[in-house]
Amino acid sequence: MRIDELQTPALIVEQSVVRANLDAMSAALPGDRLRPHVKAHKCTSLARLQADNGHRGFTCATIREVETMAAAGLGEDLLLANEVLDTRRLGRLVDAGHRVTVAVDSTETVQAAVDGGVREVIVDVNVGMPRCGIAPEKAGALADVARRAGLTVRGVMGYEGHLMLVGDEAERREHAERAMALLLSASADVGGDLISGGGTGTYAVNTWVDEIQAGSYALMDTAYQQVGLPFGQALFVLGRVISASSDWCVADVGIKALSLDHGNPAIDDAAVWFCSDEHITFAPEHRLAVGDHVRVIPAHIDPTVALHERMYLVDGDDVVDEWPVDMRGW
Amino acid sequence: MRIDELQTPALIVEQSVVRANLDAMSAALPGDRLRPHVKAHKCTSLARLQADNGHRGFTCATIREVETMAAAGLGEDLLLANEVLDTRRLGRLVDAGHRVTVAVDSTETVQAAVDGGVREVIVDVNVGMPRCGIAPEKAGALADVARRAGLTVRGVMGYEGHLMLVGDEAERREHAERAMALLLSASADVGGDLISGGGTGTYAVNTWVDEIQAGSYALMDTAYQQVGLPFGQALFVLGRVISASSDWCVADVGIKALSLDHGNPAIDDAAVWFCSDEHITFAPEHRLAVGDHVRVIPAHIDPTVALHERMYLVDGDDVVDEWPVDMRGW
Repeated sequence: MRIDELQTPALIVEQSVVRANLDAMSAALPGDRLRPHVKAHKCTSLARLQADNGHRGFTCATIREVETMAAAGLGEDLLLANEVLDTRRLGRLVDAGHRVTVAVDSTETVQAAVDGGVREVIVDVNVGMPRCGIAPEKAGALADVARRAGLTVRGVMGYEGHLMLVGDEAERREHAERAMALLLSASADVGGDLISGGGTGTYAVNTWVDEIQAGSYALMDTAYQQVGLPFGQALFVLGRVISASSDWCVADVGIKALSLDHGNPAIDDAAVWFCSDEHITFAPEHRLAVGDHVRVIPAHIDPTVALHERMYLVDGDDVVDEWPVDMRGW
Repeated sequence: MRIDELQTPALIVEQSVVRANLDAMSAALPGDRLRPHVKAHKCTSLARLQADNGHRGFTCATIREVETMAAAGLGEDLLLANEVLDTRRLGRLVDAGHRVTVAVDSTETVQAAVDGGVREVIVDVNVGMPRCGIAPEKAGALADVARRAGLTVRGVMGYEGHLMLVGDEAERREHAERAMALLLSASADVGGDLISGGGTGTYAVNTWVDEIQAGSYALMDTAYQQVGLPFGQALFVLGRVISASSDWCVADVGIKALSLDHGNPAIDDAAVWFCSDEHITFAPEHRLAVGDHVRVIPAHIDPTVALHERMYLVDGDDVVDEWPVDMRGW
């Protein structure tokens, strides 16, 4: 099939670009130095390529992601880097022989791990972003609680998410150093052999953790493009112009096909005016006709992917594979 | 099952409120005066309640919505109020005996209807919002083109989407009158027996169209709440507090569970700070504990519903039904 035969809107991945991105990251962070985060693509077909590149452990954000990765044979070392209150579905995966580690930041989430039959935890440490994570100085005591409850504490994790989009690399490194100093002090109290953190924005500057939890690098978005990373834009939403006037065009790619939480998407050689449910209104520099195809690049990849049932892998104008977005939902 | 046994995040619909909303709208716009728009809920179970209330025709935004409504036995009169370039799937529905009408605003979309085997069209008229729709003065000529191509032209539609959230009702009515004057002039040129338009925001003030294409009224969101309409908030996303500190709490409802395109969601008695992929960080007025349930009300219902596989219908604390969100995708 050729790309212009696809029903629009369609999520498209350029094969050569995604492969180059995966290889560039694997060269920078080989093997266990990278724990790819699947939340950015929610696609076991893509995760398998990451595993083929030598990364055995994966990061997940939801129970569904952990379950789907395990079912796909990618359950060698799955870290659910998020707090979970009902861990019974995770416990069933552990019983089935998959290695599942869950983040804890409170006595309640430690107890939840015990109750559901999860045996390994990681202490989630707040390193500066007001979200989950225990205060660094309390991490050691929580690790003690977990060990007394019979759990194995693998170490610490901390996500410096507030730094991912800091534009200047030196500034990003400096902020990351301060954030990671908090994580390292917690690690000294917690013990274990794992220090996990980071993301696509800090993969090159965060040299303090054992492993980086990056996900967006594989497919990229316009927000990360602005940070000056060596990864290419591999993903776009293909649309068609369904209406054209002298001043603007409308394509069939709206906010049910991409997420606006990081701002409007981009179209090359066009000014994007606004998006509505099933439409994007934009002013192209060169006149377009009804039926023309357009490539819309989302500002934030993670929630965009979650809106689609599948991605199409393309090589030039040929559709070479169809990848189910099989980790959606919870 | 009780509501607190649900896996979170979960999309919840309060039965008494949705029924009151449906009844209030059906009293104001009985029978064919209302053509409910299914894009706001993407759920045939809910559409069936609207049909039971006496509305035989429905509005759709995507081919998938049209197909799913037809498969559910709700295909008596389906209007795809959007331009479509490949109408073959619609033509197959027509061949199977369903009544499908598609919007056209160009010779290309007229030709697409012919090519795909759709026999009835409606001329989409631009009434002031820069999106789809032909200029009013050109509508008659396009209808002639369609009739010469063998199509039945049912009439005109125009969506005054730019007026839906105008806060003052008198002002909304005044703007709507000007928008609808454009539609009526186009109608005089186009002919046919249908003038379709409007939405939840203008259902009461748009007295010029034959039928109103309202959808959001059934479940509502915070954006429409601010317009002062007689519909209650029937939908929320149920979450649980997974992390709590002295200054803020985090619940498991993020931008993969609700859309931010109309701004942050609301939580009663709390200030919402920000949302990330799977989290909402907020400061509650009264201290919450890990495990507590919270109700998060989205600012925009349509793209929020599209993120979920199902809605749970509740009566108080009891879950009384599970409704698949079965019209997602394209």
